[in-house]
Amino acid sequence: MSAAIRLGRNMPLDAERLWSDLMDLATITEPERPYTRRSFSKLFIEGREWLARRFKEAGMTVRIDAGGNLIGRLEGSDTTAGTIIIGSHSDTVPSGGRFDGVAGVIAALEIARSLHQAGRKLRHAVEVVDFLAEEPSEFGLSCVGSRAMTGMLTGDQLDFTDPTGERLGEAIARVGGDPKRLTDAVRGDVVACFELHIEQGAVLEESRIDLGMVSAIVGIARVEIAFEGRADHAGTTPMTMRRDAGLAAAMTVSFVADRASKDALTGQGHFVATCGIVEQEPNAANVVPGASRIVVDIRAEDHSLTQYFIAALDQRTRAIAHQLGIGRPVWKVLSDSDPAQCDDTLRSMLQESAISLGLSSRTMASGAGHDTAFLTRIAPSAMVFVPCREGRSHAPEEWAERDSLAAGAAVIHDAILKFDLVTEPEQGSGEAIV
Amino acid sequence: MSAAIRLGRNMPLDAERLWSDLMDLATITEPERPYTRRSFSKLFIEGREWLARRFKEAGMTVRIDAGGNLIGRLEGSDTTAGTIIIGSHSDTVPSGGRFDGVAGVIAALEIARSLHQAGRKLRHAVEVVDFLAEEPSEFGLSCVGSRAMTGMLTGDQLDFTDPTGERLGEAIARVGGDPKRLTDAVRGDVVACFELHIEQGAVLEESRIDLGMVSAIVGIARVEIAFEGRADHAGTTPMTMRRDAGLAAAMTVSFVADRASKDALTGQGHFVATCGIVEQEPNAANVVPGASRIVVDIRAEDHSLTQYFIAALDQRTRAIAHQLGIGRPVWKVLSDSDPAQCDDTLRSMLQESAISLGLSSRTMASGAGHDTAFLTRIAPSAMVFVPCREGRSHAPEEWAERDSLAAGAAVIHDAILKFDLVTEPEQGSGEAIV
Repeated sequence: MSAAIRLGRNMPLDAERLWSDLMDLATITEPERPYTRRSFSKLFIEGREWLARRFKEAGMTVRIDAGGNLIGRLEGSDTTAGTIIIGSHSDTVPSGGRFDGVAGVIAALEIARSLHQAGRKLRHAVEVVDFLAEEPSEFGLSCVGSRAMTGMLTGDQLDFTDPTGERLGEAIARVGGDPKRLTDAVRGDVVACFELHIEQGAVLEESRIDLGMVSAIVGIARVEIAFEGRADHAGTTPMTMRRDAGLAAAMTVSFVADRASKDALTGQGHFVATCGIVEQEPNAANVVPGASRIVVDIRAEDHSLTQYFIAALDQRTRAIAHQLGIGRPVWKVLSDSDPAQCDDTLRSMLQESAISLGLSSRTMASGAGHDTAFLTRIAPSAMVFVPCREGRSHAPEEWAERDSLAAGAAVIHDAILKFDLVTEPEQGSGEAIV
Repeated sequence: MSAAIRLGRNMPLDAERLWSDLMDLATITEPERPYTRRSFSKLFIEGREWLARRFKEAGMTVRIDAGGNLIGRLEGSDTTAGTIIIGSHSDTVPSGGRFDGVAGVIAALEIARSLHQAGRKLRHAVEVVDFLAEEPSEFGLSCVGSRAMTGMLTGDQLDFTDPTGERLGEAIARVGGDPKRLTDAVRGDVVACFELHIEQGAVLEESRIDLGMVSAIVGIARVEIAFEGRADHAGTTPMTMRRDAGLAAAMTVSFVADRASKDALTGQGHFVATCGIVEQEPNAANVVPGASRIVVDIRAEDHSLTQYFIAALDQRTRAIAHQLGIGRPVWKVLSDSDPAQCDDTLRSMLQESAISLGLSSRTMASGAGHDTAFLTRIAPSAMVFVPCREGRSHAPEEWAERDSLAAGAAVIHDAILKFDLVTEPEQGSGEAIV
């Protein structure tokens, strides 16, 4: 029995309308490579015009902030209560899917629309946000809009250029932002943020759980390692005289898988490490590999695990190079971002909402980056994961069920009502609760 | 003290002339990528015209046989004694060196020239052969000329085409061969073959030994293996849910190095195995590798070692695939050639010649393929290896010392004189030695 069928008459919003909006927006794509609506492109702007119309039809006022985020707003009854943000992103990777990001924007639209149509005016203002350019773009930067809203978009980054030579700042202005007044985008009024997103993994599907409640968004570190041996003749060079850089790469790959599998079992949360890039030169059948290069991707909920892992990797690859009599000319930590903690109180509210709606859920980390990772810097934030088929994402086959999406949206809808209520200041009481 | 200086007045040939011929032929190269004189090219033909002139100046008659081999001949005094072949190849790989192959042809020229100028007419005819297209060419076949001379060039192979669409048979005709009468190239009169070649490895240089006497030319087997797992998100896929084809490749690479190092120590002669080609897909930092491919090159003096190794590799890669829950869609023995045994008697003669000339030598296998591997099929054959700097070959830096080349040529010269003498039939004796 699907999640929404179990919801039955408790469903506070229109699952069909949510689905049909999602499918409508999916038609705005490069026709020869569905589903493609890259940030800053004509199709991206066309998609946003469609969204802006829908936002207005749902009773919201619509603006684009200085950081280029498209925002629909329902005012609250208490102008001092602050703003609840619900959002995600409408841009896609090339040949991406119909759900990554977009599902979160359409779910937010459906929540606001349902609130408006039900005549429920909350104390808090509610904003539906389409964050600008979450996916890596031609400018070499992801999460442009959520960086801007949290004061993390730097002047240097505005000068990043795409292959046509356009500056990121110019592109933000082109889609309606105001890069010269970027601080206007930074928010001090936000009291809670919610994001619905497909899991982009197969944990929920395989464990047949309706929803994932995100505890943290992993920090991501990337380490580049190169080994330099000697490209010798594969026939004439005895095993004892080799300086095989390919073997060094292979030993490193085995170490990474082995150590990461152990670190994932320490009880310190989600931990994964991957040798996604492994290359050797000259890569010819009759030549002992003289050079190799590996990029290791390390993701952890607990940053100390990442630090220990990187130290162990450094030590081990130096030992491998020493053992094989080769060099390790490149050891470079390309990036190392901190994990972002989601808010425990908001997560508890979401879990209670799931229980009251008859939905199963589990706490889990997000192994992928999201706008919410930046939002945690300005306000308590929460994410709800919806199962997706076989964990596939960033591909046209990406798929989530209509009822799963509706269930996720319903839980956020319910939690927002609860949040709006429980955070109400007690009348006449000026005393703090100790 | 260099080999030739130690030779002193025993030197039966002109080291300086040998060297200057070698350097002259090296000037016939593609100017923008020295040293390139690929088989069947205009420069290759130009190089052979230069060689043919030198052969004639050295007193030889010159012809091109049906297989496209360029042959200079000194007649012997006994027309029934048969022919001694000395040779190698004048073609190069792209951006190759000045010594691989060419050194053997020029050494053969110098030996024949010295015999002629000294007025020493042998009982046997002596032929200096530039074998056609020893290196892998655009037709995808190596050792074209030595295959033809030993009856191993097939009609199918004559139909191989290069990227321009030319057939190998047409190319052989273009350089002066006669592919329609290919059996004319097959020889029944050859009684001994000698080839001088640079070692293409660093064993002689590192052990400071003047010359290598080749015991056998390794058999070469190539095995292609592909693993198929699942290209999952590197962040969202827990270690326990991965089907990592890159890890399977890495485990295979480690197994090959480990097992080959042990097999090299069994006392069954030269044994090496190499994972020269290792590739993974999609090879992106944030994706668990979903597919990988390895080509393993296995070379052994003793073919049974190769057979055991391939069986173990098959078993181990199936076990790795099983352990990681992935597939092994490709297991393909691409080729598996028998080792070729050099002639013990000829090798003993060469070793005696080295001793009498005051040169050190060691018996060793050839880890690379050579024309001699085919010649062993029609006659007792021997190879002499000359040290080359750092084992470098197939590169412009390829280098052998003038005196080392002269030493190798002198030893072959001396052994040929001995062979011509000791194989003389006893007068009046019709009895076979039992």
